[in-house]
Amino acid sequence: MNKNLVRYVLGWVLVVIGAMFLLPAIVAVIYKEYSDLIIFVLLSASCVAVGLISSKFKPKNTQMYVKEGYISCALTWILLSVIGCLPFYISKQIPNFTNALFESVSGFTTTGATILGNDVQIEDLSQSMLFWRSFSNWAGGMGILVFMLAVISQLSGQSNMYLMKAESPGPVVSKLIPKLRGTALVLYAIYGGMTLIEFILLIVGGMPIFDAITLSFSTAGTGGFSIKNDGLMAYEGLYYQQGVVTIFMFLFAVNFSVYYYIIARKFKQAFLNEELRWYFIMYAAAIVVIGLDLTINDVYDWWFDRWHHAAFQVATYASSTGFASKDFDQWPQLSKSMLMVSALIGACAGSTGGGLKVSRVVILVKSVLRDIKQMLHPNSVYKVKMDDKVVKEETVRSIHVYFTLFVFIFTVSVVMLSLDEQMDFTTNFTAVIATFNNMGPGLSKVGPTMNFFNYSVLSKYVLIFDMLAGRLELLPIVLLFNKDSWTSK
Amino acid sequence: MNKNLVRYVLGWVLVVIGAMFLLPAIVAVIYKEYSDLIIFVLLSASCVAVGLISSKFKPKNTQMYVKEGYISCALTWILLSVIGCLPFYISKQIPNFTNALFESVSGFTTTGATILGNDVQIEDLSQSMLFWRSFSNWAGGMGILVFMLAVISQLSGQSNMYLMKAESPGPVVSKLIPKLRGTALVLYAIYGGMTLIEFILLIVGGMPIFDAITLSFSTAGTGGFSIKNDGLMAYEGLYYQQGVVTIFMFLFAVNFSVYYYIIARKFKQAFLNEELRWYFIMYAAAIVVIGLDLTINDVYDWWFDRWHHAAFQVATYASSTGFASKDFDQWPQLSKSMLMVSALIGACAGSTGGGLKVSRVVILVKSVLRDIKQMLHPNSVYKVKMDDKVVKEETVRSIHVYFTLFVFIFTVSVVMLSLDEQMDFTTNFTAVIATFNNMGPGLSKVGPTMNFFNYSVLSKYVLIFDMLAGRLELLPIVLLFNKDSWTSK
Repeated sequence: MNKNLVRYVLGWVLVVIGAMFLLPAIVAVIYKEYSDLIIFVLLSASCVAVGLISSKFKPKNTQMYVKEGYISCALTWILLSVIGCLPFYISKQIPNFTNALFESVSGFTTTGATILGNDVQIEDLSQSMLFWRSFSNWAGGMGILVFMLAVISQLSGQSNMYLMKAESPGPVVSKLIPKLRGTALVLYAIYGGMTLIEFILLIVGGMPIFDAITLSFSTAGTGGFSIKNDGLMAYEGLYYQQGVVTIFMFLFAVNFSVYYYIIARKFKQAFLNEELRWYFIMYAAAIVVIGLDLTINDVYDWWFDRWHHAAFQVATYASSTGFASKDFDQWPQLSKSMLMVSALIGACAGSTGGGLKVSRVVILVKSVLRDIKQMLHPNSVYKVKMDDKVVKEETVRSIHVYFTLFVFIFTVSVVMLSLDEQMDFTTNFTAVIATFNNMGPGLSKVGPTMNFFNYSVLSKYVLIFDMLAGRLELLPIVLLFNKDSWTSK
Repeated sequence: MNKNLVRYVLGWVLVVIGAMFLLPAIVAVIYKEYSDLIIFVLLSASCVAVGLISSKFKPKNTQMYVKEGYISCALTWILLSVIGCLPFYISKQIPNFTNALFESVSGFTTTGATILGNDVQIEDLSQSMLFWRSFSNWAGGMGILVFMLAVISQLSGQSNMYLMKAESPGPVVSKLIPKLRGTALVLYAIYGGMTLIEFILLIVGGMPIFDAITLSFSTAGTGGFSIKNDGLMAYEGLYYQQGVVTIFMFLFAVNFSVYYYIIARKFKQAFLNEELRWYFIMYAAAIVVIGLDLTINDVYDWWFDRWHHAAFQVATYASSTGFASKDFDQWPQLSKSMLMVSALIGACAGSTGGGLKVSRVVILVKSVLRDIKQMLHPNSVYKVKMDDKVVKEETVRSIHVYFTLFVFIFTVSVVMLSLDEQMDFTTNFTAVIATFNNMGPGLSKVGPTMNFFNYSVLSKYVLIFDMLAGRLELLPIVLLFNKDSWTSK
């Protein structure tokens, strides 16, 4: 591995992190939180200083390969998580380091699972810390390397591609415009623009500015952090605001290339996207089933509540945001399992959402059907198609391997959590679903009115691993543990 | 599809079923259960009569293809299950048809999950019915088509191969001797011989003959039916008997070709079997972990009890037998999840056990590692190896497809069970593990001291589907629902 190159990339990442700290610093000024201000400014200065020094020495060989791309990406996210937790820890607002790290990882990976609500309530945090926490959802959503590529990358196009591939969700990365740097810029522009629109719509509905900003951040990143202990339940009865959030959760879980094509007036390419079609069909069906299930089981008095909350919860699970408009742990079994399956399938590739991704699941199903057909007609040759184009056998294979690895890591995680004697099986199983798919709350003891505080330190690190592996789609994190990745060749 | 050929095969299957009914008829004579005797004799006569008529008309075209093989196999098992439940139902010893069918399917698929223990206790059944119930474990273990091939098949070798492939567990079927009929005979001879040895060892330990016969049947088929409500817990303190059963559960979950090689004095081929090595390593590790877990958590007073029951439960889960020597639902979480994972991995291919099969899991892991290596070194070509031989890419792919289909059916089953409002998630999840892997008891409300009686009719049919799909390794049952299978071409 070209260690110099990785060091160089991480240098630039540090500069970006340093710049990011300036935003909560501004919030600290506005709210006169001066001790927090000092922390953010000092952290910012240190990151920028170390970053600039490290990125000053450009390596001779800037040619990046798969290995360097994945390892840089994994280390970027570990750096981000550790540095990102320092404000909470140094300010003693989250006095335990593991908890602070958990919160930071949960933020950047857009999981939204929290350890707050026990010894420390969410409302105990200062405004600047709350801002930083929600902002981590936003920064993690589109990705920090993608941001770096958009603004400061000095690397060659090929190298950029490997970095982008490592960080972006989905089985294939599509360039929207010939230059990768341009693609990264376009993605961030769409991302910023949509976040702004949500913010304005929430303000129009009468939400306080600080709530609207932080809520827009965590919706956009499909993160799910809230500045209130009760989460979105705190906005109970505010149907307009919850409605806006529902729609934007669905929107942010769509492949961003669709929006690019719409802006570029290539409507045909935008709406012929097969993944989008399945995404729509599946989750419309999920809303109908859950709405009926709530109706049959007489869950709420008013019919509108049933459908409103069904749509909200499907949006939050499908997009892996993890907000809760109601304590759905009290819902009937069928609705709960539908939600869990939605979390597993997750969002579209190339969105800010998590999960296996709709396109992967569609290709898996098609490949199973293809193999059955092939078996019945051994003399014909069948191909898996997506968007009316043949999917390369190599891609099909890599998706199967991805799925297998996903299930294995999932299973091992559940077994490791079962070392925690005070937790039951439902809690452990849904905790892994919630973190590995970057969703947020699970059921039972990690349900929407509970939190992850009571897990042991070991379990928290298992879940931290799952959140990072889930956000980076397994390989970068898995490669960290592969001896082969660290050899020079 | 060649419907005439399928009709012909099913005719012979009926003859075999008819012959099978004679065994419980003999038991009925011994125990003077004359009303049961009439039922078994009448059923036997009808099956043989219809079967002989149907198999009288040999189709012109006896050439079988994949399609006919799988469909014949699926229909054979459905026929077997339905006819097999009639004694229980007609005698009113199990008065509800769905329950009788559940018990029959559970028997033949060697699952061993029971609905007895609520309105009807196991001990309420007559001796001949108990015999029939345990015998179904034995007949289902090695397979009814394999038996038919061994004794009466009039089909060509190629056709036999498709039938054998459809019914035998594991990714590849190996012929032990050139003639398939000979292979089937050898398998049944080994099977019968080992069952006899277990029977003798149990008798030597002082077990009553009827208990020893039925227990040997359900161990051999890795079925898990017991003639007592308390199952193997009824033999509490009988360490010798439980020890014999432990060893034989492990033995019956080994690929039978290993025994063939031992008999044929090809010791090298027998012990170089890679699957056997992994089987041994994995489950030895599982025993150690569970033994330590029980020790740390102070589960039993006597150290020997901890290791004895750890070994017994790992044997029962790994082999998918499903006996319980203790109420392991009271064990610590870690032990319980280790047992569930053992059930998912399951036995060796070519054994009577269920689950994904050790060789499939090993190949899946190797293929994931291969792909990671391949990604890091794109210019080299890596192959998956098993038994020091390259595994065909086609086989690797079909195993991935199998695994994907397995997880999909698993997930859909859990969702469908969640329609059952009175059941919790742990119950539903482990009920699917228990039935789909042909294991037996799950946890919580289907734990070792409970049973499947309380599930709704719909849920019971979902579980019946899972048991059949699990025993026949998905494809035959899935193809039943494929329109393409029923077309003439």
